[in-house]
Amino acid sequence: MPLPSWEVHVLGTGLIGTSLGLALRRAGWQVTLEDISPTAAALARDLGAGTVDEPHDPDLVVVATPPDVTAACVALALERWPRAVVTDVASVKGSILDDLRALECDLTWFCASHPMAGRERSGAVSGRADLFHGRAWVITPDAETDPQAVALVTEMARTVGAAVTVVDPRAHDAAVAVVSHVPQLAASLVAARLTPLPEEAVGLAGQGLRDVTRIAASDPHLWTQILAGNAGAVRDTLTAFRDDLGHVIDALDRLATDADAPGARAVLARTIAAGQAGHARIPGKHGGGRTAYTTVRVLIPDEPGHLGRLFADVGEHGTNIEEFRLDHGLGQAFGVGEIDVLPAAAGPLSAALEERGWRLHD
Amino acid sequence: MPLPSWEVHVLGTGLIGTSLGLALRRAGWQVTLEDISPTAAALARDLGAGTVDEPHDPDLVVVATPPDVTAACVALALERWPRAVVTDVASVKGSILDDLRALECDLTWFCASHPMAGRERSGAVSGRADLFHGRAWVITPDAETDPQAVALVTEMARTVGAAVTVVDPRAHDAAVAVVSHVPQLAASLVAARLTPLPEEAVGLAGQGLRDVTRIAASDPHLWTQILAGNAGAVRDTLTAFRDDLGHVIDALDRLATDADAPGARAVLARTIAAGQAGHARIPGKHGGGRTAYTTVRVLIPDEPGHLGRLFADVGEHGTNIEEFRLDHGLGQAFGVGEIDVLPAAAGPLSAALEERGWRLHD
Repeated sequence: MPLPSWEVHVLGTGLIGTSLGLALRRAGWQVTLEDISPTAAALARDLGAGTVDEPHDPDLVVVATPPDVTAACVALALERWPRAVVTDVASVKGSILDDLRALECDLTWFCASHPMAGRERSGAVSGRADLFHGRAWVITPDAETDPQAVALVTEMARTVGAAVTVVDPRAHDAAVAVVSHVPQLAASLVAARLTPLPEEAVGLAGQGLRDVTRIAASDPHLWTQILAGNAGAVRDTLTAFRDDLGHVIDALDRLATDADAPGARAVLARTIAAGQAGHARIPGKHGGGRTAYTTVRVLIPDEPGHLGRLFADVGEHGTNIEEFRLDHGLGQAFGVGEIDVLPAAAGPLSAALEERGWRLHD
Repeated sequence: MPLPSWEVHVLGTGLIGTSLGLALRRAGWQVTLEDISPTAAALARDLGAGTVDEPHDPDLVVVATPPDVTAACVALALERWPRAVVTDVASVKGSILDDLRALECDLTWFCASHPMAGRERSGAVSGRADLFHGRAWVITPDAETDPQAVALVTEMARTVGAAVTVVDPRAHDAAVAVVSHVPQLAASLVAARLTPLPEEAVGLAGQGLRDVTRIAASDPHLWTQILAGNAGAVRDTLTAFRDDLGHVIDALDRLATDADAPGARAVLARTIAAGQAGHARIPGKHGGGRTAYTTVRVLIPDEPGHLGRLFADVGEHGTNIEEFRLDHGLGQAFGVGEIDVLPAAAGPLSAALEERGWRLHD
């Protein structure tokens, strides 16, 4: 029995809308495209994301506009196609529901969602059919949402290769405030402190700073919309963060004038320990429980081919690499490759690599 | 003409002292070892880091004790071996100088230093001769320090493979407050916010959170000593951080009650933009200027051998990998490999990989 071929209308042909059109058409779905810019819609069509015909009677409408116009477009879609399920892709959910309620929309056929996929580039031209492969797609139905609407949005997300999680909209916003929005701000605020430093001071940067600040390179325009859309939840988490920070500053202030300030070291130790405990909750890859890996460190000359030979050697030995990082030496023409493997695999792998002439850097 | 073989006495046979002994002996230097624990000293000797004889007339004494007893041990060493150059390896420099001045030490032959190498494991048994390979070794002479002392500590650091940078002690502490100590605290404070979250919320964690919080797994005991030793500089940087944070919280608070709050979005945009500007100052690998790389993304099945084949293909094509990251899909048996290469190499590499059957994920 062939799977049903749904008719989907995509409103907004930026990165997400175009990628979705490409992925759904690959799966045999019918896709029509629309954008406030006819040129953008035509570009997405030319890339193969769908047609720009007026949709006949769509089963599903996906609002893939920038977040600041999402609510207005959802309201319009619910009115234009009363028989269709409508979803959106914005990264903040509660404020959109508030706006829709203020517009007195019937939310029976609206099932909000948030694909956790993005890129540092935007626009139809950056669209890829595999953008959602292996990414989370969070579905956030309202109490009013019909279960059939949830089922259709779930089917769409799975069709494009995403892993579906169903979460309450307010819980979603509280969660992304902690796991995404506050980390972004922390990274930006840490990176901003580098600006007044002399060159030689910035030169002492190590891998820790690089990791903490990697996402500080993100786009200010998009992040302003995201943070403004989740202002309440982000404020609440940041306020708790500032309270913790205040205790640390007070402890350091006391230590700066009295190296034996009673209780000050305990505040510092508790802060680092609380971070350890929180960090231990982050799930491992594939969304499974966190696994403790063992790291095998290997010296790698900084020339073509060596990294390839290393991975070929690991592969031949039959060991699966869970994570891999390259740490480059300062002023030296080589790096240290850090290979995370399951603990039981670390010993045999180390022995095999040394046998093949690799210098381990343990 | 053979290089001079210096006589070095290492005080403290933990990870750093033992690794230093191993590396210096490999280079033909004479090394004697001493530790408050005779068992620890004997272990380092058995590992090959040196002898435990009473030093005859050392040219150089390296104090490699925990930071909280470094100053006292340096003072003792200067007194015991008045002809020797004395250095230390603590990660904070100013407070040690203060303590030495309070003890009225003559600092002519003391040249402080800070090897930027460490591990999550400690003790002699974790020592490795190549621990300092390619790492920075910061040398922080005082105004009183004799240039010959600086020269000998520089020679020692270069002998074990480190890259030497000479920095004023106070400038060192101000720099590491910004590039190391505040990032550590920010990571710990972000990670601590995860503790009260429900399981499903933590499940929405992505690569951004993983990067920001990786160093939150660090040891509370060691970090308490480091932060307490640099309390003033860390407090100053954290206070500036808290001021910036306060502006963000105020802006979000106004947006939470009035989505059109005038000027609030500008605060958010400026914060993210300031982070972008600071992030752009972080030097690239090998301590050189920051290079903008182009990222090639490749889908990699999560089975042994595929990553090896990928690197072998990249190596055969002759492209050098500048950085490599593995981003794992949620609930999917594959990951996305992110290969950073010089911009001119990205196009040819992408074409070569597609030709060899790799699916690019751009």
